[in-house]
Amino acid sequence: MTEIREQTPGTEASGRHETAIAVLRQKFSDRVHTGLSTREQHGHTTTWIENQPPDAVIFPNTTEEVAEIVKICRAYKTPVIAFGTGTSLEGHLNAPLGGVCLDFANMKKILSVNVDDLDCTVEAGVTRKELNTYLRDTGLFFTVDPGADASLGGMAATRASGTNAVRYGTMRDVVINVRAVMADGTEFRSGSRARKTSAGYDLTHLLIGSEGTLGIITELTVRLQGIPESILSAVCSFDTLKGACQSVIEATQLGLNPARIELLDPLQIRACNAYSNLTLAEKPTLFLEFHGTNEGSREEAELFAEIAAGNGGGDYEWARDQEDRNRLWAARHDAYWAARALVPGADCCSGDVCVPISRLTECVEETRLDIENSGIIATIVGHVGDGNFHVLPLFDAKNPSELEAVQNLFDRMVTRAQSMEGTCTGEHGIGSGKTKYLRAEYGAGVEIMRSIKRALDPDNLLNPGKIFETGPGA
Amino acid sequence: MTEIREQTPGTEASGRHETAIAVLRQKFSDRVHTGLSTREQHGHTTTWIENQPPDAVIFPNTTEEVAEIVKICRAYKTPVIAFGTGTSLEGHLNAPLGGVCLDFANMKKILSVNVDDLDCTVEAGVTRKELNTYLRDTGLFFTVDPGADASLGGMAATRASGTNAVRYGTMRDVVINVRAVMADGTEFRSGSRARKTSAGYDLTHLLIGSEGTLGIITELTVRLQGIPESILSAVCSFDTLKGACQSVIEATQLGLNPARIELLDPLQIRACNAYSNLTLAEKPTLFLEFHGTNEGSREEAELFAEIAAGNGGGDYEWARDQEDRNRLWAARHDAYWAARALVPGADCCSGDVCVPISRLTECVEETRLDIENSGIIATIVGHVGDGNFHVLPLFDAKNPSELEAVQNLFDRMVTRAQSMEGTCTGEHGIGSGKTKYLRAEYGAGVEIMRSIKRALDPDNLLNPGKIFETGPGA
Repeated sequence: MTEIREQTPGTEASGRHETAIAVLRQKFSDRVHTGLSTREQHGHTTTWIENQPPDAVIFPNTTEEVAEIVKICRAYKTPVIAFGTGTSLEGHLNAPLGGVCLDFANMKKILSVNVDDLDCTVEAGVTRKELNTYLRDTGLFFTVDPGADASLGGMAATRASGTNAVRYGTMRDVVINVRAVMADGTEFRSGSRARKTSAGYDLTHLLIGSEGTLGIITELTVRLQGIPESILSAVCSFDTLKGACQSVIEATQLGLNPARIELLDPLQIRACNAYSNLTLAEKPTLFLEFHGTNEGSREEAELFAEIAAGNGGGDYEWARDQEDRNRLWAARHDAYWAARALVPGADCCSGDVCVPISRLTECVEETRLDIENSGIIATIVGHVGDGNFHVLPLFDAKNPSELEAVQNLFDRMVTRAQSMEGTCTGEHGIGSGKTKYLRAEYGAGVEIMRSIKRALDPDNLLNPGKIFETGPGA
Repeated sequence: MTEIREQTPGTEASGRHETAIAVLRQKFSDRVHTGLSTREQHGHTTTWIENQPPDAVIFPNTTEEVAEIVKICRAYKTPVIAFGTGTSLEGHLNAPLGGVCLDFANMKKILSVNVDDLDCTVEAGVTRKELNTYLRDTGLFFTVDPGADASLGGMAATRASGTNAVRYGTMRDVVINVRAVMADGTEFRSGSRARKTSAGYDLTHLLIGSEGTLGIITELTVRLQGIPESILSAVCSFDTLKGACQSVIEATQLGLNPARIELLDPLQIRACNAYSNLTLAEKPTLFLEFHGTNEGSREEAELFAEIAAGNGGGDYEWARDQEDRNRLWAARHDAYWAARALVPGADCCSGDVCVPISRLTECVEETRLDIENSGIIATIVGHVGDGNFHVLPLFDAKNPSELEAVQNLFDRMVTRAQSMEGTCTGEHGIGSGKTKYLRAEYGAGVEIMRSIKRALDPDNLLNPGKIFETGPGA
C-alpha cells in the first residue's frame, strides 16, 4: 500500500502550494515567511537526514487561525507541518512534499493554572522552562524534562519523556487533555479536566505521539506536581554494568521510587572528567535523585546505598543542599557537551531504544561491543529506570563511510532492542528516520495505524512522510 | 448520522445469526450455549437497563479461536460481544442486536511473570484476585482494585480504576500492551514490553476503554508494583465536607502521595455503624492508606494529621498492624453492603462522575441536596483523591416513579459534573447507559470517535449499541 505520494517540486503540486501560500499571505500578510533561511531553519532536526524545507513558514496566533490555515491548505491539498522549537531528533519536521510549516512561537499563553487541581492549561508554544519559570511561586512544577527546552505541544506530539519519567511519567502520563485542529479544520478538545475518565475513546492518547500526522495540538492541559519537601541527589559507581542495573531492579522491587536514575558508561565518565575537570572513577555510574519528605528521601537514599553495596557499588555520595547536589550531578548535566568535546568539531546525533529493564545489561553491553567493533567513537547515556538508553556517536556526517557505519550501528541497536521485547524508540519518536522499523514492532498493527490515518486525514496533508514508510512496497 | 441499525428479532438478521451459530457449533460443539438462562446471565449488568440476551454464548480457549469466531461472525454480519465477569455497571454487555457473546472464563492462563521488570502477561479472563493470589510469593502486586473481582480484559476494555488509582493509576496507566482481535479477524499486539515508547500511534490506549467496540482484548501485559515495606491506614472525620476535600488538596500540593483516599458521607457512615456495629461520628469521613518505607509512611501519616487538624478534622486514628488496619477500614470495605442494608430488599445501582478536585466539595454538596429533594435514599462514596464519587440509590426498580426519580438524579449529577469541567463517568464507562452524555463532553470529538469506529469496524459488529447513541438523529 502506498499512501505517501512522492511529488517533485516544480510540478502541479508545487503550483497548488504556491496558490495556497498566496491565499495565506492575503490573510496573514507578514506572518507568512518564504525566505530560504527561515524555511531551512524549519526543515531540519538534529539528525543525519537531509534538510527538506517547507514552501513557507507561518506564525499563527490562535487556535482559530490554525483551523483557518488548515482549511486553506486543505483546499489546495498542501501539506501542513506543526513546529514547536525544532528540537526533535528523527527528522520530524522535514517537508518531503513541501507545504506550510506552522511555527507556534506566537502561541505562548499560559491560559490557567489550577493550583488546587495541580494542573494548568497552556498554548502549544509554551516551553517547559517557560512554564516552570511561570510556576515558580506556586510550589508546583511541570515534571517532564527531555533535556532540550522543547515546547509542550511538540513534547506531546512526540510523546517525549526524559530524566524524571521513572517517577512522574512521560507526556503520555501527564497530559490530561489536548485541544487540536484536525485535517478537515475541525477543532475540538479531547477531554475534560477530570483526573480520570472512562467516557469514550481515548483521543488524548491517540494524538499524543502521533507526530502531527493526525491533528495539530494547539493547547494542552497537563498535570503538575507539588515540589517535594526534600530532594536528595546521589552518585554511585559500579564495578560492572550488571551491578548498576541489578541495583535499580532490586530498588524498584522494594517499592523505592527515585525521581531520576541515570546511567553514564565509562567512556562518557571519561568525557565528563575531561570536560568538567572531575575525578570520577571511569566505571558504569548511576546518578540518582530522591524526592519525598525529609525522612522518607533520606531513608530511600540509604536503602539504595545498601542495595548498591550488595551489587559491587562503591563511592556512594549523596547530598541534600542545592549546591552540593549540583556538584554531584555536574557530570550528568553536561554529558552531551562533554561527549561532543571528545572529538572536537565532530557531528553528533543521538539514537535511542528502550527495553525491559531485565534485558538492559545485555542490551547495553552488546551495544558497547558493537560500538567498539564499528570503529566509531560513541558514549552511552541511559534513563536506566525505564530501560531507555541513548548512543551518542561522534563522527563526520560528510564522510560517507562514517555515516554508513553510524547508520548500521543504529540499525543493529534497534534490531537488538526489538529482539529483546523492546521498542525502536523510547522517547525520540519515528519521524522520518525510523519508519522502516515500525512493521517489525507492530506487525498488523501498522495497518490499523494506517486505517486510522486514512480515516482522519484522507488526503495525507498532516506532516506527510512521517511514521509510515513511503514509496513502492510500503 | 445513524450507525447502529436497529434490527428486529425474527428477521433476516436473526436468520443470519442462526446460521453463524450453526457454523460455530460445528467447530466448537458443546462450548456453544444457547439455553435461555445462560444467555440471560450474559445479557445484563448491574443497572436498570433491561436484559438483552445474545443469541449464543461461546467459550473460546485461545486467541486463535477468538479470531476464528470473529471471522465466522463477520461472514454472517453477526455481532460479537466480549464478556469477562459481567460486573460492569452501565449495560456494557447487553445484546440489543443479538449476536454471539464470547465468555473468557476458559482463558485464565498467566503466561509470564517478569519479577525483574515488574510486569506480567495474562490471558484476558484472569481476574485481579486470581492474579494477586498467584503473585503472593513474588513480593509484587497488581494495583488496580475496582471492588468487584473483575477480569483484567474487562477492566482494560472499560478503563477501570478504583481505590488505589490515586497513587498507582488506572488501567490506562498500568497496561503496557494488549493482544487483540479486530473486527476483520486480524490479531495483533499493540506494543512491546518496554516501559515507554514513542513509536507510532498509541493503539494500546485506543483499545483501553473502547468497551469491546474496536477490538477484543485476549491478552494483556500489565505493570506490577513491589509490595511496600510499610502500609499505614488512617481514618479521620471532618466537621465539613469542605474540610475533608481541602485536606486532600493541601496534602497533594505538599507532594504527599497516599495510596488510597476514600470519602464516606454522613449517611453512609450511619449505614456502616448500623451494619458493622461501629460508633463512628456521622460526619464526612476520610479513609486513607499510606505506602512507603517505615519512616516515610509514618511521616506522611503525621503530616496528613497536621493538615487535617487545620481543616476541622478530628478523631485521627492510624495503624500499621494488619488487624488494626482492617478494623479501621471495616466501614469502607463493607460500604456497599451497609448501604444496601439501609433499605432491606431494595434495588441498588451505582452512578459515578469525576470532577477536578477543586470542584468536588461543591459537586458533592449539590448532589447531596439534590438527593434529599428527590425523595430517594442514597449514600455517597468517593475516590476523593481523583475527584471521583459514586451515588448509591436504594429504590424499587419496578416502581416507575422511583425509577424515574433515580434516572433524573443521575441525569442532573452528570450535567452538574460536566458543567464543572468534569466527566460523565470516572470509571464505570459509557456502555448503553450513558451514550446520551458523550456529545456534551466531546463535541466534535464524537465524530472523530465515530470515524475511527467506522474505519476499524465498518459493519458495526463489535459490541454494537455501546458508547454511541443509536436511532434517528444520532
